[in-house]
Amino acid sequence: MAGAPARGLADVVAASTALSDIDGRAGLLFYRGYDINDLAGAATFEETAFLLQRGSAPRAAELADYRAELAAGRAIGTLAGGVIADVAGRQRPMEALRSLVSLGSADDPDAGSNEPGANLRKAARLAAQQPVLIAAYHAARGGRKPPEADPALGVAANFLLQLSGSAPSPRAAEILDTCLVLHADHTMNASTFAARVCAATLADMHSAIVAALGTLSGPLHGGANEQVMRGLEVIRQAGGEPRDAVAQWVTERLADGEKIMGFGHRVYKTEDPRATHLRRLSGELAAASGDDTYYQMSRRMEEVVLAEKGLYPNVDFFAATVYHYLGIPTDLFTPVFSASRMAGWTAHVIEQHADNRLIRPDSEYIGERGLRWVPLDAR
Amino acid sequence: MAGAPARGLADVVAASTALSDIDGRAGLLFYRGYDINDLAGAATFEETAFLLQRGSAPRAAELADYRAELAAGRAIGTLAGGVIADVAGRQRPMEALRSLVSLGSADDPDAGSNEPGANLRKAARLAAQQPVLIAAYHAARGGRKPPEADPALGVAANFLLQLSGSAPSPRAAEILDTCLVLHADHTMNASTFAARVCAATLADMHSAIVAALGTLSGPLHGGANEQVMRGLEVIRQAGGEPRDAVAQWVTERLADGEKIMGFGHRVYKTEDPRATHLRRLSGELAAASGDDTYYQMSRRMEEVVLAEKGLYPNVDFFAATVYHYLGIPTDLFTPVFSASRMAGWTAHVIEQHADNRLIRPDSEYIGERGLRWVPLDAR
Repeated sequence: MAGAPARGLADVVAASTALSDIDGRAGLLFYRGYDINDLAGAATFEETAFLLQRGSAPRAAELADYRAELAAGRAIGTLAGGVIADVAGRQRPMEALRSLVSLGSADDPDAGSNEPGANLRKAARLAAQQPVLIAAYHAARGGRKPPEADPALGVAANFLLQLSGSAPSPRAAEILDTCLVLHADHTMNASTFAARVCAATLADMHSAIVAALGTLSGPLHGGANEQVMRGLEVIRQAGGEPRDAVAQWVTERLADGEKIMGFGHRVYKTEDPRATHLRRLSGELAAASGDDTYYQMSRRMEEVVLAEKGLYPNVDFFAATVYHYLGIPTDLFTPVFSASRMAGWTAHVIEQHADNRLIRPDSEYIGERGLRWVPLDAR
Repeated sequence: MAGAPARGLADVVAASTALSDIDGRAGLLFYRGYDINDLAGAATFEETAFLLQRGSAPRAAELADYRAELAAGRAIGTLAGGVIADVAGRQRPMEALRSLVSLGSADDPDAGSNEPGANLRKAARLAAQQPVLIAAYHAARGGRKPPEADPALGVAANFLLQLSGSAPSPRAAEILDTCLVLHADHTMNASTFAARVCAATLADMHSAIVAALGTLSGPLHGGANEQVMRGLEVIRQAGGEPRDAVAQWVTERLADGEKIMGFGHRVYKTEDPRATHLRRLSGELAAASGDDTYYQMSRRMEEVVLAEKGLYPNVDFFAATVYHYLGIPTDLFTPVFSASRMAGWTAHVIEQHADNRLIRPDSEYIGERGLRWVPLDAR
């Protein structure tokens, strides 16, 4: 009934967007026309989320209002808050966030409305709440509650405060802030696409974000940064000179036809620009930490993978060590990714609802044909 | 970077499947090669779910084992069960199911595993639990608990028992069973596609099903059956001869360029075969009820829409009155759809995991280009 199957929809244009653009040959990423290389280190996460959700770089008064809206919206709702201790004890981080965000619609005054104003307000609240949910989850599994957010701090600094229990250094907060900017949007990645497929039935924003969270939980998408760190830990714990051990580990895996997590991307044919920034930040944090072993191991790994497979590190590869040096537990790497990508997901839902068409592809039937149903007693 | 945009992915083949096939010109639907016209009234929902999830029509011993597996798996988990009263008071039905299924992974012994055996077991449990969750939600919002399921009854009869508090007539159970068969799968519909996009990151089955539930909640997908019923109720309450009132209502709406819910489908160019069966069942239930007003109104509506727009009723149109005559509250129509489609969704997740490729399309960038980031104080 339709054309040849496009497995994985590679190179199929599924939607139009004014949010982000990738030049895969040149290794460039743009948010609403701004080069990510100009934003990294210059724009805050709050400015970036405003840019994506509301369409332009905020002026000072707009940014002050938006920051106030984020601060007012960051409290976890009573339904999610009432169950967070049970959830933290019984669901892994991304499962828990899927549940808590789903429960969160009960406390959202705009739940169920897809009106433009409602969507903007929900987008701000969801972006404000995601880091708080992660910190509250982490505290709850330790039997604690996170400290109150500090109204003088931004999203990144408050997250590190609420996660660790003490205020981060200004530079640590800046580096996490840059990470949140770098991960905020990335065209039609799988979780964003899932959010748009969901929103295109005119399902509400919470449904679309829950779909995105579930999709991000898969190891082929958000889970890769955690696997990169666990790989480095395994190699280091096995002993030997770390850089040599890495080279041997990679070579053995490639010889077995295995994939090395954190390398290659369907869209980039050269280095992912986000990886360039994350490599630099990882190196800075490694030097400051006094133990740059994981950074040195990462550098060696990328040399070997590039030489043997011609693959470049992707966004997940150096994010792993950056998050590690920032003191973020490894099983919260994907949740931190979600706290950043929430800006992009919500912006995509706003964009989908503003000019909607149901996303309903065809499929190719490859099963049996012409079978006759035989009653149970004659089977 | 890629071809012309395919808005809504209409006619784009996004996946291969051996689960269902549609001949849109002839108005035929097949599950694993069996014509839905042969299954309706002949196969039970349990046989259909087995067929979809496990690949073939079950023999008697296989069916007995599968029914026992469903019965053993239908208990709601402790995490979801502990919060269901709060959820029922604070979330609408599809929001609540999204939350409860997400919480449900905490009590699933195979949570987090995508192994084939684990997926089969989770598929059975999710199909067994969905009608129980709906009935428990409905009871909880009335401050009650549903009666225990009767091990002698099938999924459809137990649902009506647990929803209403008393055992249904055998014919009512048969008719709901046929509805569950008719709605069990339908190629790459939006919720199934969302489940596959999610599963293709190797996210687990619960994540994919939660994505599907959120997607089904949209009024362009699962919500249509509820809107059909609410339309009929509004017209009837406004007074006048019901068939004339329907004709006038439809004519006015079409003159205003509005869409009539329950008509037309992207894939069928003739009558949806499911609508044929549902029309017959609606007529039977209407006659038995002693008040066939809604059925007669529906018949008149389809005459007018066909004459004026050339559109045929889709699966949602007569499902509305069938569910109404079965005593199902209107706001549970989409949840009942989800109880049936759970068979198909889970089967698609199994199929996606068995031969996976990440689903990651391209997008067309339509926004501004070449902007320079200006510091906040210079904006």
